[in-house]
Amino acid sequence: MSQPDRPVQTRDAEATKARLLQAATEEFAARGIAGARVDRIGTAAKVNKALIYTYFGNKEQLFDAVMDAHVTRVLDRVPFTPEDLPGYAGRLFDFLADHPHQLRLATWNRLERAGTDREPEELHASMRRKTDALAQAQDDGQLPTAFPPEDLLVFTLALVGAWMPTSPMATTEPAAQQTRQRRAAVVEAVRRLITREETGQDSS
Amino acid sequence: MSQPDRPVQTRDAEATKARLLQAATEEFAARGIAGARVDRIGTAAKVNKALIYTYFGNKEQLFDAVMDAHVTRVLDRVPFTPEDLPGYAGRLFDFLADHPHQLRLATWNRLERAGTDREPEELHASMRRKTDALAQAQDDGQLPTAFPPEDLLVFTLALVGAWMPTSPMATTEPAAQQTRQRRAAVVEAVRRLITREETGQDSS
Repeated sequence: MSQPDRPVQTRDAEATKARLLQAATEEFAARGIAGARVDRIGTAAKVNKALIYTYFGNKEQLFDAVMDAHVTRVLDRVPFTPEDLPGYAGRLFDFLADHPHQLRLATWNRLERAGTDREPEELHASMRRKTDALAQAQDDGQLPTAFPPEDLLVFTLALVGAWMPTSPMATTEPAAQQTRQRRAAVVEAVRRLITREETGQDSS
Repeated sequence: MSQPDRPVQTRDAEATKARLLQAATEEFAARGIAGARVDRIGTAAKVNKALIYTYFGNKEQLFDAVMDAHVTRVLDRVPFTPEDLPGYAGRLFDFLADHPHQLRLATWNRLERAGTDREPEELHASMRRKTDALAQAQDDGQLPTAFPPEDLLVFTLALVGAWMPTSPMATTEPAAQQTRQRRAAVVEAVRRLITREETGQDSS
């Protein structure tokens, strides 16, 4: 929406909010909710910290704003392709490798808010949309039914996250070639989840 | 080691330490390092918090003690079977479902200490022992070589963790039947990692 005749003050306020949100993203990704300090965010954004309370409310509400911005971003940027789950895994791997804050924020959220009523609605809604799409692809015969949609989604996300810096196994910064090999391995692991097998080990 | 003639004071000190370690485990698992409060640990253990500093040092060092106790526990309790990775996945799933603090502690450690020099040595050593064992099993022909040992281990752990409460996908407390179904799905997903395939989709 182009709004050429908005007053300067409003544009300034939005620029300030954007700077605060960016600084808050860095601070929360690095330290989580309990470890984050509102005054550090104000300093990094070069904004009086009183304005944080004016614009966003308390520290929890500022974290909500950061989660909203990032959850929405992930949902929009990586199109979900239920008929090509390995391809989705590869694209999500690339996106998360380029945006390391995303997984850290989601993990802090999980650790610090599990079981509270502050978990973002939109996260659950997004999962539900994806499992619905997987169920539809299974109904249409585009996708094997060896795993229920929920397992397929959770395993795909777990495999994509396996080598990310939030994983307990991740070591130091990988070299570029290592990242390419890991991406290929993740895509292959997801492909194996949806392979139609004729195997003697079938446990049905 | 039986030590029947140790003085009462020493036994008291050890009981106090054990109580503090237990209270610290609960506190750190729930809130992480930044969120934990030493006075809350003292209160829960019914011990003057000054004794925490005497016995363990500062909050970071108390977290070290908790990690040591728990990392060692996991290593000892779930035998690693490179020739039967799906079986290992199932047993680790059971252990972690029964000990929800383990993954939370490991995840806090990862988030709050990544890139610092405080990451526990023993965690890396344990991973290395497991990848060595997987490499040996591959050399012996007991295990397919579709994935390098590191990928195999990381993917197995990621799949086991996929439905645990630390996972971004995990919802509320699962019913017992749901847990059994998820366990079976995890074992099956790991089995697919080590399936020898003749497939037209081979990307080599």
